[in-house]
Amino acid sequence: MPLIESEATLIERLRELFHTQLQSGVEVGIGDDAAVISASKSKLVATVDMAIEDVHFRRAWSTPFQIGAKLTTANLADIFAMGAKPKYLLVAAAITETNNLDVVTELANGIRSVADKFEVEVIGGDLSQGEKMSLSITALGELDTNPILRSGAKVGDLVYVSALPGLSAAGLAILGRGLDRPRYVVEAHLNPKLAVPSALIAVATSMCDISDGVTTDGSNIAKASEVDIELSKQLISNAAGFSDLKELADELNEDVFDWILSGGEDHFFFATVDPKNAKNELGVQIGVVKEGKGQVTLDGAIIQKAGYQHF
Amino acid sequence: MPLIESEATLIERLRELFHTQLQSGVEVGIGDDAAVISASKSKLVATVDMAIEDVHFRRAWSTPFQIGAKLTTANLADIFAMGAKPKYLLVAAAITETNNLDVVTELANGIRSVADKFEVEVIGGDLSQGEKMSLSITALGELDTNPILRSGAKVGDLVYVSALPGLSAAGLAILGRGLDRPRYVVEAHLNPKLAVPSALIAVATSMCDISDGVTTDGSNIAKASEVDIELSKQLISNAAGFSDLKELADELNEDVFDWILSGGEDHFFFATVDPKNAKNELGVQIGVVKEGKGQVTLDGAIIQKAGYQHF
Repeated sequence: MPLIESEATLIERLRELFHTQLQSGVEVGIGDDAAVISASKSKLVATVDMAIEDVHFRRAWSTPFQIGAKLTTANLADIFAMGAKPKYLLVAAAITETNNLDVVTELANGIRSVADKFEVEVIGGDLSQGEKMSLSITALGELDTNPILRSGAKVGDLVYVSALPGLSAAGLAILGRGLDRPRYVVEAHLNPKLAVPSALIAVATSMCDISDGVTTDGSNIAKASEVDIELSKQLISNAAGFSDLKELADELNEDVFDWILSGGEDHFFFATVDPKNAKNELGVQIGVVKEGKGQVTLDGAIIQKAGYQHF
Repeated sequence: MPLIESEATLIERLRELFHTQLQSGVEVGIGDDAAVISASKSKLVATVDMAIEDVHFRRAWSTPFQIGAKLTTANLADIFAMGAKPKYLLVAAAITETNNLDVVTELANGIRSVADKFEVEVIGGDLSQGEKMSLSITALGELDTNPILRSGAKVGDLVYVSALPGLSAAGLAILGRGLDRPRYVVEAHLNPKLAVPSALIAVATSMCDISDGVTTDGSNIAKASEVDIELSKQLISNAAGFSDLKELADELNEDVFDWILSGGEDHFFFATVDPKNAKNELGVQIGVVKEGKGQVTLDGAIIQKAGYQHF
């Protein structure tokens, strides 16, 4: 456990950890009062996400690498969900083991594992001690078109998810029982992989990333667009991966539709699409947009179980 | 204690709390996956600051309003220290009393009390439960000139602070003894006021805000500029406010120079200035820049007591 002598030393180490070939846009990176980015012809897109120990993650289940990677994934998903390209991150972290360089390094490496994949650069940060680990990441992106808003769904649109969610919820259910297998299911919860839904982005009339579950996130789109979202069990049951998920749910005596509709954190995407643009590569069609006042229904019935709520 | 029914309701309340006349630059504010800002001809300046309960503040001493205002102050100071103008904030907060709308409202109002003063708008946020309150704010600013870096100090420059620091440290010392008077001293710690050092910004060769104390922040400039910073007790003793501060320190058996040189959180500014630009309105001259390798000295001796370290 290498010891850190001082905050200045730690910041120096972090600067090394986050050092990349500075993109041409970054004029000043980590190490001054603030970062400076060259003027851009693009619109700026900005979002912040926070993860708190024992609320969003447990240290017993997740490594610092996984915690860093997962929040970065969630954060970049928000930028992609606007139709934008993420470019820069600012990271604020409170850690308990402030004298343990390994923890800081693993957290930074987890963040970089996702950021590097999408050519995103960490340009600033703040590091503090805390009784619980907490992490807050701000992502900045660039947008050259109009943003894809939650308010754009039209009656008659088809409802898509970029892939069938639920595996993350399944992984959480397994961990909650003190188990850690099947490993690929647990990994889906601890280490979700971000796949940019390029085909969906190209045609979506509305879009958001699924972080709080299809019902909650779909409801945000339904309310913002002043429509109802009608989901279909039949459409969902036809999706690739459904039968494996159902088998897992049956083994654990859980409802597979709860996992699919209320589980968050797969970081797939929810979108509505004009039927004339429908095609398989968009993902899984799970419903349609109807006239209404912001409700999400399953086979016509209001969905009772809400998605994950942080409160 | 009004109760919040759900995260969606809370976010709706926050959207109301942070609602301002949207600046022309803000195309999408709070309420979608991310905020969208129109393309700007200016450079973008970005910084993040974090404050954690029982590390940076105590709930027994500070109200949620003060906690929000103080971190916003620190955050905007970083943008001003680059010579830039702050424009937007993203706020991530973890609060213990998630069902207490008063706490959320007061925190938001504290942030707005500072943001409004400088015409800065909150464009995004994240809210979570946490065992301890924590707050992370990202400030985005615009810059039309070259940034004022820490690395710009030149041998022969004069060393200035925008005002004599130390009152915040005095306030902390008083609170630490279980006292709460003189009130203006305690207030200096709990509720520091941000004054933009426009005259200093116009001529500074290097600059940073003083958050960790003159010694620590001066040392950052000395190292980045590869010079020594030589401070003078005589110059400091001549400053306005010094004798009041010394009287307080003597009463509490503390060293006034410790407060001035090691106390942070006044959020004044440290800068170096070419002697040809010297004038009274810049603030207080406390030393000079000499050849060296990054040390800060007082009357030629290395300063022993370091500034506030978060570790």
